[in-house]
Amino acid sequence: MLSKLVKPVCRNPLPIENILKLATCRGNASVANLVPEEPSGPSMKTDIPGPKSKQLMKQLSNVYNLGSTQYLVNYEKSSGNYIVDADDNIMLDTYTQISTMPLGYNHPALLNVFNDEHNLKSLINRPALGVYPGIDWPQRMENLFKQVSPKLPKITPMMCGACSNENAIKTSFIAYRMRERGDKDFTEVEKKSSIMNQLPGCPELSILSFRGAFHGRTVATLSCTHSMAIHKLDVPSFAHWPIATFPMYKYPLEENRRENEEIDNKCLEEVEDLIEVQKKTCPVAGLIIEPIQSEGGDNHASPEFFQKLQKICKKNGVAYIIDEVQTGCGPTGKFWCHEHFNLPNPPDIVTFSKKMQMAGFFHSDEITVKHPSRIFNTWMGDPGKTILLEAILEVIKTQNLLDQVNRTGKRLFEGLEQLQKEFPDMLHSLRGRGTFIAINAKGSELRDNIIKNLKKNGVQSGGCGTESIRHRPALIFKEHHADIYLDILRNVVKDLSKGKKRN
Amino acid sequence: MLSKLVKPVCRNPLPIENILKLATCRGNASVANLVPEEPSGPSMKTDIPGPKSKQLMKQLSNVYNLGSTQYLVNYEKSSGNYIVDADDNIMLDTYTQISTMPLGYNHPALLNVFNDEHNLKSLINRPALGVYPGIDWPQRMENLFKQVSPKLPKITPMMCGACSNENAIKTSFIAYRMRERGDKDFTEVEKKSSIMNQLPGCPELSILSFRGAFHGRTVATLSCTHSMAIHKLDVPSFAHWPIATFPMYKYPLEENRRENEEIDNKCLEEVEDLIEVQKKTCPVAGLIIEPIQSEGGDNHASPEFFQKLQKICKKNGVAYIIDEVQTGCGPTGKFWCHEHFNLPNPPDIVTFSKKMQMAGFFHSDEITVKHPSRIFNTWMGDPGKTILLEAILEVIKTQNLLDQVNRTGKRLFEGLEQLQKEFPDMLHSLRGRGTFIAINAKGSELRDNIIKNLKKNGVQSGGCGTESIRHRPALIFKEHHADIYLDILRNVVKDLSKGKKRN
Repeated sequence: MLSKLVKPVCRNPLPIENILKLATCRGNASVANLVPEEPSGPSMKTDIPGPKSKQLMKQLSNVYNLGSTQYLVNYEKSSGNYIVDADDNIMLDTYTQISTMPLGYNHPALLNVFNDEHNLKSLINRPALGVYPGIDWPQRMENLFKQVSPKLPKITPMMCGACSNENAIKTSFIAYRMRERGDKDFTEVEKKSSIMNQLPGCPELSILSFRGAFHGRTVATLSCTHSMAIHKLDVPSFAHWPIATFPMYKYPLEENRRENEEIDNKCLEEVEDLIEVQKKTCPVAGLIIEPIQSEGGDNHASPEFFQKLQKICKKNGVAYIIDEVQTGCGPTGKFWCHEHFNLPNPPDIVTFSKKMQMAGFFHSDEITVKHPSRIFNTWMGDPGKTILLEAILEVIKTQNLLDQVNRTGKRLFEGLEQLQKEFPDMLHSLRGRGTFIAINAKGSELRDNIIKNLKKNGVQSGGCGTESIRHRPALIFKEHHADIYLDILRNVVKDLSKGKKRN
Repeated sequence: MLSKLVKPVCRNPLPIENILKLATCRGNASVANLVPEEPSGPSMKTDIPGPKSKQLMKQLSNVYNLGSTQYLVNYEKSSGNYIVDADDNIMLDTYTQISTMPLGYNHPALLNVFNDEHNLKSLINRPALGVYPGIDWPQRMENLFKQVSPKLPKITPMMCGACSNENAIKTSFIAYRMRERGDKDFTEVEKKSSIMNQLPGCPELSILSFRGAFHGRTVATLSCTHSMAIHKLDVPSFAHWPIATFPMYKYPLEENRRENEEIDNKCLEEVEDLIEVQKKTCPVAGLIIEPIQSEGGDNHASPEFFQKLQKICKKNGVAYIIDEVQTGCGPTGKFWCHEHFNLPNPPDIVTFSKKMQMAGFFHSDEITVKHPSRIFNTWMGDPGKTILLEAILEVIKTQNLLDQVNRTGKRLFEGLEQLQKEFPDMLHSLRGRGTFIAINAKGSELRDNIIKNLKKNGVQSGGCGTESIRHRPALIFKEHHADIYLDILRNVVKDLSKGKKRN
């Protein structure tokens, strides 16, 4: 009986192709969902939060700061692109848990993963991966590399986006000093001073970041984050780390090409100037940048900008860190957003988390910290998340989800373009890649009202920056989901437009 | 067929009492293992790392910095207190993945957890807990509180020990400024300056930490970490954060009472002086301390020391942060180590991770940051880990594992005391609570040799500080496991002692 107990799961779960066949065999091809039993559309029963959510929020408030909670979710009933709340309201989700659910809710491939006893044991026996990895870990890492490495040879797994960026930054500092030090060992003075947080062991080095950037909320990543004051107020920071201007383009791009080129050049000049000035006091060891500034307002920069930035980094011995925490894993129509930029060489470091479930960073050989345990922590990742990522990558490949993202993205973009034309006094600056699309409302009040009314009408969406609506659907968001969303958005904007005219 | 597929698991897994009955019904009570099918003792087949480990390490080195890897582990074969490596060497584990495995390997209660479909769905639909918690989350948090809250009313879940400490520190900063600011809103100058990392928005405030402390390796927690230079070299730090001396007692304690009291008083005076001096330049917002300094060498301080420290914090408006990342969840014989100190009031913040699987911090109402999203990140924890913690707590309660820890701890302590008497020129300074016990070797070379030879003879152990051996067995480590370990240790020390005499 016990063996039944500890081995309750079958050793050979159904192969993924069979699962996916089952998932897509219903209805006609164009409106077939990629997750079975997905609702056919939103269905709203109460205000949000509804009475049950309110009751649960009251209970939770006994032990919790609830300020940011919107409502409680029934994760058993949620399915595919639809999130179901405590009051059985069914909403089309274009925000997917702050852009972290590549396959939406309850995807059969993920439900199937821990039917495999080996996977289950990897999950519950969480190792200290830096010291005692499991015998399956080398193969898992090799497979991961073959499938998704951004042309970089090494990986360091982590637990979340912020600690990935923290350790990417640390890697830049250590690599910078390794280069300066050459073959020499640490001096006794360096060792003793470092223990007490002092020079020369703890050097004056800096990371260059950009206005509007978001790289996390731990203290050091917060020193690289400049999207909103409320994130940063009252927290001490590295005051000498330089901050450059991120290009803020005029839209539509094709009408403002020359002006936007000038914006690029000014920003690049500023970066060069800052690196030069810092050399005298607090040299720049690394430059961290998002391929699309996300929290900061979905700000894009041109491939040429990213190419030239890489040149500047190379020339100055500055590590080029691309933060793909929000953009990675397919939403822009390529697996990594920076693939759109045709960089002549890979970046030095690419960080990831969110949709990937597992977090960490890929890096070059040159920047890899050789000494054991300098880039280290207890867990160094989590095999349970890596196993989920493997299943996700398999579905992305088998169902050609990157193609799907491009098709859905086109439909969504064209629909929003049409709306922007219809309501030029309300919507503007449409931009995006794949389904990673944003559009601005005229003013933050209007933006907030659109998001509020979308929710009332069955769409969970999200904002970014001061007046943007950002679209972060799952990779299984199809053309017909875009149509449902666009219909609701049109009605919401139309209603608000009428209200505006009445005032 | 599909419903079989997506619901492969039974809705009502076996109740925990039945699992535990099955787990303990074999053999006579005193040597019965708390996990079934546990090996009866170590069994070594090869050197470590053995040929299979070496081959896998070579494969892994293609994509990984392998510096800290000891060997590869077969997590399917590992069981209870025994870790099995790639070459089928079976070792008694007194280190348990850097002190993170409360129930050892493949505990039936944990293997059973995700047989529950609701639990499985909570695992694979990982929410942004700060915004869209699941409908079961309030009840889960309430239960957690009832069982383990260190008399503190609020909790903030996180992902790992370092990010728990990062956010505990941030909470102290924000609370300090909230108190200074009173009802006033942020000024425009504060908002604008904070975006650029400048005063007054990003204030000059500090965290007081102790020599020998370890609070993590992210940049800010590293500024509070002073255990080893290699962790800190080349990473910029907050040079103005004060560092006090941690009491370094003479052992045995009963023979050195007066001297150790004086050490306490000197350290406390230094803390008060530092807080006073900092007021003029970079005031102390929080003081962070481990109840037992772990990485730094298992350094203990008296209950009186911790009581007086709390008084100093209260008097100066400094948040008292107890870092229970390594000590929490039972290894000292109480659930939280600071329960041994009889503090008149709870600390302001208690951080946790490791054995708890989930991470985060408990905190007082006064220190709770009210504004939404100031203490925030995408995931804000992980329900999958909380569900594992629930099962762990149930086993701790049902099997009275804290009593077990105290019984085993007594046996282990007495055995080590005996060894210390037998080999006074090799072992000294035995100390500890529960099974959280350390002993020093005379010199780091001897310590390293003991650990190496223990491994050769089938014991996975760990060091800390420069010359300590630390014991971090699972809570299911029983008296007979201690006996097996002590026998092997005696032989190892005896052999090294002979070698020493020969030289």
